Amino acid sequence: MDYAEHALDKHRQLRGKIEIALKDTLDSRDQLSTYYSPGVGAVSSHIANHPETARDLTWTNNLVAVISDGSAVLGLGNVGPAAALPVMEGKAMLFKHFAGINAVPIVLDVHTADEIVAAVTAIAPSFGGINLEDIAAPLCFEVEERVKAALHIPVMHDDQHGTAIVTLAGLINAMKVVGKKLTDCKIVLVGAGAAGVAIAKLLHQYAQPQIIAVDSKGIISSDRTDLTEEKRHLLQFAGGPVAAGSLDAAISGADIFIGVSKPGLLTSTMIRAMAQNSIIFALANPTPEIMPDEAKAAGAAIVATGRSDFPNQVNNALAFPGIFRGALDNHVATITDEHKIATAEAIASLVKTPTAECIIPSVLEPRLVETVAAHIR
Amino acid sequence: MDYAEHALDKHRQLRGKIEIALKDTLDSRDQLSTYYSPGVGAVSSHIANHPETARDLTWTNNLVAVISDGSAVLGLGNVGPAAALPVMEGKAMLFKHFAGINAVPIVLDVHTADEIVAAVTAIAPSFGGINLEDIAAPLCFEVEERVKAALHIPVMHDDQHGTAIVTLAGLINAMKVVGKKLTDCKIVLVGAGAAGVAIAKLLHQYAQPQIIAVDSKGIISSDRTDLTEEKRHLLQFAGGPVAAGSLDAAISGADIFIGVSKPGLLTSTMIRAMAQNSIIFALANPTPEIMPDEAKAAGAAIVATGRSDFPNQVNNALAFPGIFRGALDNHVATITDEHKIATAEAIASLVKTPTAECIIPSVLEPRLVETVAAHIR
Repeated sequence: MDYAEHALDKHRQLRGKIEIALKDTLDSRDQLSTYYSPGVGAVSSHIANHPETARDLTWTNNLVAVISDGSAVLGLGNVGPAAALPVMEGKAMLFKHFAGINAVPIVLDVHTADEIVAAVTAIAPSFGGINLEDIAAPLCFEVEERVKAALHIPVMHDDQHGTAIVTLAGLINAMKVVGKKLTDCKIVLVGAGAAGVAIAKLLHQYAQPQIIAVDSKGIISSDRTDLTEEKRHLLQFAGGPVAAGSLDAAISGADIFIGVSKPGLLTSTMIRAMAQNSIIFALANPTPEIMPDEAKAAGAAIVATGRSDFPNQVNNALAFPGIFRGALDNHVATITDEHKIATAEAIASLVKTPTAECIIPSVLEPRLVETVAAHIR
Repeated sequence: MDYAEHALDKHRQLRGKIEIALKDTLDSRDQLSTYYSPGVGAVSSHIANHPETARDLTWTNNLVAVISDGSAVLGLGNVGPAAALPVMEGKAMLFKHFAGINAVPIVLDVHTADEIVAAVTAIAPSFGGINLEDIAAPLCFEVEERVKAALHIPVMHDDQHGTAIVTLAGLINAMKVVGKKLTDCKIVLVGAGAAGVAIAKLLHQYAQPQIIAVDSKGIISSDRTDLTEEKRHLLQFAGGPVAAGSLDAAISGADIFIGVSKPGLLTSTMIRAMAQNSIIFALANPTPEIMPDEAKAAGAAIVATGRSDFPNQVNNALAFPGIFRGALDNHVATITDEHKIATAEAIASLVKTPTAECIIPSVLEPRLVETVAAHIR
């Protein structure tokens, strides 16, 4: 199927994929007086006097904002707020479908950290949680950190942590399949954007493996003079005592390749230079760094991609519905690294007997959301 | 019925009065790929290349934000954003119920004009229209003016214009009942808040009657030295060549009293000092400036209040659903004074034969929304 034309047709036909529904009718004067003036005045007064009851008396107890400035939308880049809206509406559909959570798309017409933080914190009392989405690196790091610090509701930039959590989940099971320990592995990570940095941080936090990060200029090492502040920050988790060099140099003997970079970046020759039982996470979307069959032919033991039409899909939808379901239900004010690791372990645990073709459960796994949510406390 | 307890019970039970519903299911991989990645990428690309298609491909074509900073909620005053939320959710119910419009409550944790304008304009691409609500005067005047100037979508502060429009509608029919012309009337207006100022402006625009505005210190006249900037501004529409004086002085010989002030302000003695066939709009909520039976006993020909349990309810819900319905459907970028006057005339026209007991139609009048919407072009 040509998804592009089909998707445009369906979007033209529906004119929006979500809508507001009422939880009760408004057919009588009694109902009008209960849900609006004068009755609602008593509810407002009650909240004014007992602020902790706000979430029980409004829809915020089951409500997340999906917020983007449209600066890094899918593989399209900086398309701006209006063009980002269909993606945020789609994400709102996923929230409702997978976790029963109401989600409202908010796209922002501002693009500096100060302005984004100001807008998000200004509207925050309207929501029970905030899912930041498709905000470009390095802006996303500062925005998420500042918004988290300012608010007492769960905040997560899904492009960073969703991908990192599911990558860790896949690696936990991959280790069982190949009989290695993550701590002992040499990992080459290509792509220093939102997802790449979050993956490095989370893997470091979890098992402190050797991580060599690579960008378009080669290995990210402390002797390079062209590093951005964020890439310099990344050296805390990745790089270690390595010298500048090419991807070819980095990948020699590596156990794991993780790409959040661009199509075709990884070659069969490179895979042949890796350690035995190599593991390839080729996550560029929609076209991976190497196609799974080619990677397998070159000797890879396990291949994961971002695609639903190959085994082992690294799909954010494995993580965020359960995380927010748990955070909302359990009144969690901050999503921590411990929550992210527990989520990865919970997702991994849903594959009873991991194999090369199945290290990551399906998003249609029925116990998924409840299993993750139980760990967000 | 005790609406306070009943409303609290129902709100506790429902835990939010609105929710997000999906316009299609997400049960298959095809649907996931159509409404989210990869299909939605084509929709985003299309909007990036053809920005004018955004409203046809997203829910913004039928979506309004109901935005408040919680600074003037119902009769409760400055209760803040969390306590304002039940009211905004209720308003969202009214939007859906009366006009089929999706409305999202947004409460703001910022309270200066600069911050409110920044937050509202930042999130504006998420919506097709903006209903400002329960923002205190004089802040609301500057906020509305600046937001309108900054955006190309319909923006209306309902507390100002909804009340003003329905008041004008009622007066248009009241004139038919008592056989007077609005242009020739002497009007005493008490209350220089959001609604009071908007009423003065709209009546002046429509018929230039003599309007004497009164605040808690007496007649608002140019020889007073204690006037705020906004009250000084009000002198353009109200006050004319009047000297400082009391409400008693102002009301002598008046044809119309309009109160958006406080309970019990108007006395029988004052009504007896008015002209023959006096008209009383006692709009303080929930307790009017004078009760209708007392006003009638003192000689008033027509009485309107804000309450649903007396005849002639001045109810904003007569105006805003049709105004936004028309503005969204007809791609109206700015709601003008001409739209407001046309709305008042349309509402008035729905009462075929006005009488003292019926100068304003019911909000349950079936042709209401379509009749108003047809005039918003």
